[in-house]
Amino acid sequence: MKAIVLLSGGLDSLVTLGQALANGRQVLTLTFDYGQRHAIEIDAARAIAAYYRVQNKLITIDQSTFCEAKCSLTGGAAASTYVPARNTLFLAYAAGQAEIIEAGEIYIGANRADRTGFPDCRPEFIHAFQGVLDQGTKIPARILAPLLELEKSDIIKLGMRLGCPLELSWSCYNPQKTKPCHTCDACRLRINAFRAVEDEAEKTRSHCS
Amino acid sequence: MKAIVLLSGGLDSLVTLGQALANGRQVLTLTFDYGQRHAIEIDAARAIAAYYRVQNKLITIDQSTFCEAKCSLTGGAAASTYVPARNTLFLAYAAGQAEIIEAGEIYIGANRADRTGFPDCRPEFIHAFQGVLDQGTKIPARILAPLLELEKSDIIKLGMRLGCPLELSWSCYNPQKTKPCHTCDACRLRINAFRAVEDEAEKTRSHCS
Repeated sequence: MKAIVLLSGGLDSLVTLGQALANGRQVLTLTFDYGQRHAIEIDAARAIAAYYRVQNKLITIDQSTFCEAKCSLTGGAAASTYVPARNTLFLAYAAGQAEIIEAGEIYIGANRADRTGFPDCRPEFIHAFQGVLDQGTKIPARILAPLLELEKSDIIKLGMRLGCPLELSWSCYNPQKTKPCHTCDACRLRINAFRAVEDEAEKTRSHCS
Repeated sequence: MKAIVLLSGGLDSLVTLGQALANGRQVLTLTFDYGQRHAIEIDAARAIAAYYRVQNKLITIDQSTFCEAKCSLTGGAAASTYVPARNTLFLAYAAGQAEIIEAGEIYIGANRADRTGFPDCRPEFIHAFQGVLDQGTKIPARILAPLLELEKSDIIKLGMRLGCPLELSWSCYNPQKTKPCHTCDACRLRINAFRAVEDEAEKTRSHCS
């Protein structure tokens, strides 16, 4: 079966792609250029798609859509990383692409870690968007969010089990040229999750020895 | 209250805009350039927005999104005018804009005439998308589709009652330079609807005389 995977280039979308491939899907990945400050993420998406040898389509979203938004991801000064209706827009593009290539599934990396600040990462939102696909497209695709109930460290562990090239993913919101800043929310979340996974492994090892 | 109005430049969206203004809304109109063959429609949208002195924002949709679709509106050879997930995409953009400008309403011109061929013009679809707004945005806007139960001739009559500049709207899918072809589905629907309105008016007049 064909599937669309939303691939930002971050950890979550990488593991989601790994899961789609583990499910045996023939994948088209979609990456969005919406003028995000961390555009290096797009390079990561390309590298990940190349690693897996899957098709990657870059969709440019009219920057004027977001540039007035008071959010830091597209260059504003405010602290929030919330971009209004971003996943709605990404899923809308995915819905169209799914119809065009006749994909039966759309994979999105929404998960527990993003749930507090981003209403469009919650199960209720995914469920609501499924309703839009069911009603608004001729051959409705099914939305799959395999990470929906996972915390970041669980996502890392799943990625390891699936053999995902985690080192190719990009999380930082404030890249210093080609290096992550290690201080932004996304960096800290990533670092702490990797540490938690490592600590757990350490405990298991000491327990076994 | 602020409102977003999806303004294609066609008859339906013009009358929808007229209704939003009659409702006393402060309107931002959104027009989409998605590489449609009938791009003259965009000029009509601009002319309509200028007539009403409302803001018009042109959003360019990455043409690669649609160019592979087997549909005639973006230049393909097939007969269908169906563009996959088009209203889903338009409403997704509207959802983001509504959050940005804090609009409480989103107006869309979906109506009975389009319902057969376009799943994303049906009441069930509009209802489903309302669910996405309710779940996926911080301050959910309400979607209004004032033409939802109207046939084309009723839309024309409503437009006349609202004093809409119907002559500024554009319907033809196959423009001959700046003139409508008078033979495509959209032209025929428009011509027949205007004739029906005229016939009805004629009957009323003869009845009264």
